[in-house]
Amino acid sequence: MAKHDARLDLLFTSLGDPTRRAILARLARGEASVTDLASAHDMALPSFMKHLRKLEEAGLISTTKEGRIRSCALSPEAFAPVEEWLSEQRAIWNDRLDRLDDYVGNLMRERMHGTRPED
Amino acid sequence: MAKHDARLDLLFTSLGDPTRRAILARLARGEASVTDLASAHDMALPSFMKHLRKLEEAGLISTTKEGRIRSCALSPEAFAPVEEWLSEQRAIWNDRLDRLDDYVGNLMRERMHGTRPED
Repeated sequence: MAKHDARLDLLFTSLGDPTRRAILARLARGEASVTDLASAHDMALPSFMKHLRKLEEAGLISTTKEGRIRSCALSPEAFAPVEEWLSEQRAIWNDRLDRLDDYVGNLMRERMHGTRPED
Repeated sequence: MAKHDARLDLLFTSLGDPTRRAILARLARGEASVTDLASAHDMALPSFMKHLRKLEEAGLISTTKEGRIRSCALSPEAFAPVEEWLSEQRAIWNDRLDRLDDYVGNLMRERMHGTRPED
């Protein structure tokens, strides 16, 4: 549970930055070299590398080096805990709305029977 | 776009903390007073209030005060930009896989025709 929590912390905080989200959106279209990725961002390379490391740490991207070229690829399966957490919340919320629906439905039926003297 | 980005930054960073996610999961079950929410967390009240303020700033919860009681409620519609961003990524990724499928399919058909001398 705590381990899962730490993973979610890392994933959500990684996603909480526009540069990192832009990198992920670019990599969703296919692999790219660090040089190509960096060229799209007006940022010093060390700062850009920090963003890549954060994404790699979260497991959202993987990097491989061939000769002098370092390439980055998206790891889309890493989004799973985020999507699971969100759908869990949605399930709890929808369940609550369903129970509220039932409650209001019962209340209305009771009220109908209570206010019709001919019944 | 920049405005939308700032909203996503705030949402994702708000979700990147286990206390805040626990508060949201609790509120998905229904409204609760600050006192009740805080009692579930082993944390000084000022620190706890900071988490609530962060969630409120992100629009994920709303608070109302009646007499001395401050109540918190989930604003589930606030999750929409997060879910939209994730589904956009999934769409880009799936589109890429579809194109890869087409490419591999074409390659295999070409290869079949090329390696069967009787054709």
